[in-house]
Amino acid sequence: MLIKVINPNTSVPMTEAIERSARAVAGEKVHAVTASMGPASIESHYDEALAAPGVLAEIGDADGYVIACFGDPGLDAAREVSDGPVVGMAEAAMRAASYLGRGFSVVTTVDRSRGRTWDLAERYGVARFCRGVHACGIRVLDLDRDPDALATITAACRKALARDESDAIVLGCAGMTHLVADLSAEIGAPVVDGVQAATLAVQSLLAMGLRTGDRGEFAAPPPKPYRGLLHGFAR
Amino acid sequence: MLIKVINPNTSVPMTEAIERSARAVAGEKVHAVTASMGPASIESHYDEALAAPGVLAEIGDADGYVIACFGDPGLDAAREVSDGPVVGMAEAAMRAASYLGRGFSVVTTVDRSRGRTWDLAERYGVARFCRGVHACGIRVLDLDRDPDALATITAACRKALARDESDAIVLGCAGMTHLVADLSAEIGAPVVDGVQAATLAVQSLLAMGLRTGDRGEFAAPPPKPYRGLLHGFAR
Amino acid sequence: MLIKVINPNTSVPMTEAIERSARAVAGEKVHAVTASMGPASIESHYDEALAAPGVLAEIGDADGYVIACFGDPGLDAAREVSDGPVVGMAEAAMRAASYLGRGFSVVTTVDRSRGRTWDLAERYGVARFCRGVHACGIRVLDLDRDPDALATITAACRKALARDESDAIVLGCAGMTHLVADLSAEIGAPVVDGVQAATLAVQSLLAMGLRTGDRGEFAAPPPKPYRGLLHGFAR
Amino acid sequence: MLIKVINPNTSVPMTEAIERSARAVAGEKVHAVTASMGPASIESHYDEALAAPGVLAEIGDADGYVIACFGDPGLDAAREVSDGPVVGMAEAAMRAASYLGRGFSVVTTVDRSRGRTWDLAERYGVARFCRGVHACGIRVLDLDRDPDALATITAACRKALARDESDAIVLGCAGMTHLVADLSAEIGAPVVDGVQAATLAVQSLLAMGLRTGDRGEFAAPPPKPYRGLLHGFAR
Amino acid sequence: MLIKVINPNTSVPMTEAIERSARAVAGEKVHAVTASMGPASIESHYDEALAAPGVLAEIGDADGYVIACFGDPGLDAAREVSDGPVVGMAEAAMRAASYLGRGFSVVTTVDRSRGRTWDLAERYGVARFCRGVHACGIRVLDLDRDPDALATITAACRKALARDESDAIVLGCAGMTHLVADLSAEIGAPVVDGVQAATLAVQSLLAMGLRTGDRGEFAAPPPKPYRGLLHGFAR
Amino acid sequence: MLIKVINPNTSVPMTEAIERSARAVAGEKVHAVTASMGPASIESHYDEALAAPGVLAEIGDADGYVIACFGDPGLDAAREVSDGPVVGMAEAAMRAASYLGRGFSVVTTVDRSRGRTWDLAERYGVARFCRGVHACGIRVLDLDRDPDALATITAACRKALARDESDAIVLGCAGMTHLVADLSAEIGAPVVDGVQAATLAVQSLLAMGLRTGDRGEFAAPPPKPYRGLLHGFAR
Repeated sequence: MLIKVINPNTSVPMTEAIERSARAVAGEKVHAVTASMGPASIESHYDEALAAPGVLAEIGDADGYVIACFGDPGLDAAREVSDGPVVGMAEAAMRAASYLGRGFSVVTTVDRSRGRTWDLAERYGVARFCRGVHACGIRVLDLDRDPDALATITAACRKALARDESDAIVLGCAGMTHLVADLSAEIGAPVVDGVQAATLAVQSLLAMGLRTGDRGEFAAPPPKPYRGLLHGFAR
Repeated sequence: MLIKVINPNTSVPMTEAIERSARAVAGEKVHAVTASMGPASIESHYDEALAAPGVLAEIGDADGYVIACFGDPGLDAAREVSDGPVVGMAEAAMRAASYLGRGFSVVTTVDRSRGRTWDLAERYGVARFCRGVHACGIRVLDLDRDPDALATITAACRKALARDESDAIVLGCAGMTHLVADLSAEIGAPVVDGVQAATLAVQSLLAMGLRTGDRGEFAAPPPKPYRGLLHGFAR
Repeated sequence: MLIKVINPNTSVPMTEAIERSARAVAGEKVHAVTASMGPASIESHYDEALAAPGVLAEIGDADGYVIACFGDPGLDAAREVSDGPVVGMAEAAMRAASYLGRGFSVVTTVDRSRGRTWDLAERYGVARFCRGVHACGIRVLDLDRDPDALATITAACRKALARDESDAIVLGCAGMTHLVADLSAEIGAPVVDGVQAATLAVQSLLAMGLRTGDRGEFAAPPPKPYRGLLHGFAR
Repeated sequence: MLIKVINPNTSVPMTEAIERSARAVAGEKVHAVTASMGPASIESHYDEALAAPGVLAEIGDADGYVIACFGDPGLDAAREVSDGPVVGMAEAAMRAASYLGRGFSVVTTVDRSRGRTWDLAERYGVARFCRGVHACGIRVLDLDRDPDALATITAACRKALARDESDAIVLGCAGMTHLVADLSAEIGAPVVDGVQAATLAVQSLLAMGLRTGDRGEFAAPPPKPYRGLLHGFAR
Repeated sequence: MLIKVINPNTSVPMTEAIERSARAVAGEKVHAVTASMGPASIESHYDEALAAPGVLAEIGDADGYVIACFGDPGLDAAREVSDGPVVGMAEAAMRAASYLGRGFSVVTTVDRSRGRTWDLAERYGVARFCRGVHACGIRVLDLDRDPDALATITAACRKALARDESDAIVLGCAGMTHLVADLSAEIGAPVVDGVQAATLAVQSLLAMGLRTGDRGEFAAPPPKPYRGLLHGFAR
Repeated sequence: MLIKVINPNTSVPMTEAIERSARAVAGEKVHAVTASMGPASIESHYDEALAAPGVLAEIGDADGYVIACFGDPGLDAAREVSDGPVVGMAEAAMRAASYLGRGFSVVTTVDRSRGRTWDLAERYGVARFCRGVHACGIRVLDLDRDPDALATITAACRKALARDESDAIVLGCAGMTHLVADLSAEIGAPVVDGVQAATLAVQSLLAMGLRTGDRGEFAAPPPKPYRGLLHGFAR
């Protein structure tokens, strides 16, 4: 059984941290890959739209897939073209957090990402559990080089818990995955990392023999010509 | 690590089937128990209200808990008094099915149970994925003695998939857990059994070190006297 | 015509206050009873789950029933086993308040009870009218022995009206029923007590000859064995 | 204590039937009046908009008011200008029916009135209980002269209960008030008449000393000139 | 092609400002009229209910209609009796603003009008985009005579944008239409005036040959007698 | 003033039909372009994800933009990078149809596209107006070569109107734009084409001087490296 964890941005160090985090809960059957095309980090709708092709290019050679960016880029499309289950880290994190109390707070990177999180929360049916989405003000690629990152995010988590009267924290960026243990110890409340949550969700679906239904909307897409720069995506 | 799967009704054969099903996906760390008090099966709001004490009496000696009845009786209360995570089979089944497409159909036992399923679907935020709740017309304790049970439920699943245009089936009773493999083979669409889904959800939460938040609503309940028949429930 | 008002906790002085309050609006046909089993007060999901059996034990010998705890414990189950209408004080209070303007604020006892109120507000369809749920910080059994209770709750009501820009107050605990007249005079805005509202709702339903529909979900539950401590609940 | 039941249309026989029905549950303190201006019956948005002035002209000389048309015309405005509580028959009927099970069906007169009922159901928070709105095809003023009215409406109620799997019927027109007892006997399920429900709701609010909050939106409207045909409505 | 913009209040100077504003975006085919009956300004539910007749009296002699009051009085009724499209300024403004980002703030006149705006936002499906409704504290007829109106509203807009973290402002009163250009220049964010938005919406619908569907609810109302002051409204 | 209508697929004949349709309502200022990369038609989530880059490559040289595919691919991203307004044809069509009655039906091409339409209806706040989404069974590129297309779609529209009891039809594919006049004439109910509706919406926004707010989420995206096939998308 091979679970492929796809980092939708093109930053290799983040992929390495993602793999370490996923393996810590699910072992050696997990393999992480870096997108071969697209943005260095995903911090806008523009970045996210242009991250989807890189995700889709990675589907096809594993038993299940994780999309390891909190915007879950390309999720529906990946489900159509994959034979195994596909889980986004945002959906898995927010659903896992829904088991932990009445509500959670999301702590993400920059202000402009908050809208997308609300979109996803609604789409996944977890908006009723999501009591707030907060930015810590650190950009994605600074998460592992800003020496104050842990302190800054700890402060943001505490503030979020207090303001939202929430029961748990959801980390709103794959680039925070290496901090989950420290944050959890610091704040004394459950902290959910979507990389781990999504990897375990795929593992669980595989254990039950479950994959995306292929009776209708998520059947394999009808083949057709693709042109220009993207002609290689024709199936 | 011990995961305790609680059968909220008092029927031992159902507990045995539940344990087999849970162990098939999560191994020997799973132990199933039968409620020591309450109804022989849960087929009404009355049965369900009176199943909660039996569930609560089982909390306390494991690392995590599954409530193995599709009404999730006593879930909020169990979270207050447990040190580890508690997952209901309805929430786990419906959340797992939400990874498998745009919508699922629930197939349950008797008509009168459908309302409760809708209540839970809404509460868990999965109503948007739940496209229909259907009864197969078999009472709970007949599920393992009616020779036509598999055929009847297969027919109900097929009808549900067609009518609801859904991507997957959720089995709406723990008494159907022994049928999940056969049903899945028969109907050619994903079939989710909540006993397995909830056991894997607890296992995943434990792997991530997560348990119910205890900062507010789900802190341990304030101790106080209990009277009459229930005086033993004082903490 | 006999309306039975059930106090789901086991505290007799609270039952007496409830009866006085209900009789003030509906006269001598009202009779209040104290639950024969369960918690001394209801301040957690655990307490509430364990209050339901005591409520259900009281159904059967009156024309209509009020459940006089703001969590409405056992409501659905009571409707199944009763021949007459059953009304919870939370539903009646919040529906009555919905006639009084665009929105109301609930003032309840302790913080941890607020979540349950939101659950009920949503279930009863009054969440759109419920603009806030606030705790006054007084525990249930202190409501009639704390000399500052009236002042504390008055302050909480005023703060709630201002913060929520609401039109009315709903008292979120049966233990506040003796304060409704004083509070109303103090704050100069409508104050709704659910004990009175529910009693009048039952009286109104009886006047119209209405009771719970028994065509489906709320038909009498199918009889079956009950075991252990709860074996006496078999019907 | 005087409760004024306002018939928003100008048909006197309907007012008489309304008064009989209201007095049957609330006695001699109820007085019904016919609107002095506007449409003979209310069967369109146009009729309803033009029924509001006639309703508003009746506010001012009673302790509480019922608006006895299922569109509740002028309700918000009446609350602003009344010193006592004002209840619409649609809100009261649908809220009363919400005590009787999981859902009700509305049976109204003509197809084109169904949209307005859904608007009100949503506004009052009862859409979750409203499982269907059905027309019987009889126009308002024919309800008391069509010899087949009872049979036709009985058939519509039975069909609605079956199709919607609902627990109760709500009559969607004040012109059906004289049929409620017969319908109830015929169909064997609870039938709610809003004239009675609203009268009892006003009576209950008065018993609790409750009226519309006047702190904000429902304070008395600021006085100002009115011109033309409506100049007499200046306050 | 004639577009008639109806000012539902009886203040001629406001009509003149409305016409200037509408013509600025849609040219000479626009003609504005003042209601011939009703309140001098619309600042309560009472005013609004009594503004509807004046609106309805204006329907019949143009190709399309705008209702130029932010409460959209008489909208549904006007659609029934008009042969051409009818658009309310609130619906057009809020829908136009929905193209400009994740959310908008409404700035209106007086506090008591905010509730009605939320009603409309929900009815039109734009509540998800409406992040706040704020009053500037200036009464309708003072908007063009208060020398500080522009400064006061500018301040209210800035505060709303900051508090709501919104992308755009919607002006919540036709009496603000003359300020839209200045406000837009002052605050540096999009400002939507519903008079212009509704006029352009009618123009667009006419360009596409679209008008209200007349198959059901919005067919011409059935004719019937009208009595008293309103007898002239019989059709 | 230049309005650029972007056909997100790579089929030139469809672009030509789109341009004719847009110019019919908005004149010569409209220019249509064909995406330079991506799928020949958009009939799956996969196609749609891979259509977004082609849309984004077209932003930058006009005053306003229309995205002429009913999935509105790349809409949020286009708003970030455009200086002028951007409108998707699905949002414009569904909002325009919301002016025409209580509800509309969408008629689209193939079954698997219906889910995406519901996603968009919810996101745009028009789900309350959307009473049904129906497929006619004709694939996108067959719409202008299937000799029975008009008859087939006419039949689908009629069936949708009857089943949904809706007031209007929304055409769910840009490839149907050339049929709007014929369909409208055939079925006798309003038929909304999103190409025209979106072009007029952009024109209206430009007339009011409105564009996407750039204060937060829709500010220009932060610049960063792009790698691989998509490196040219770095800004």
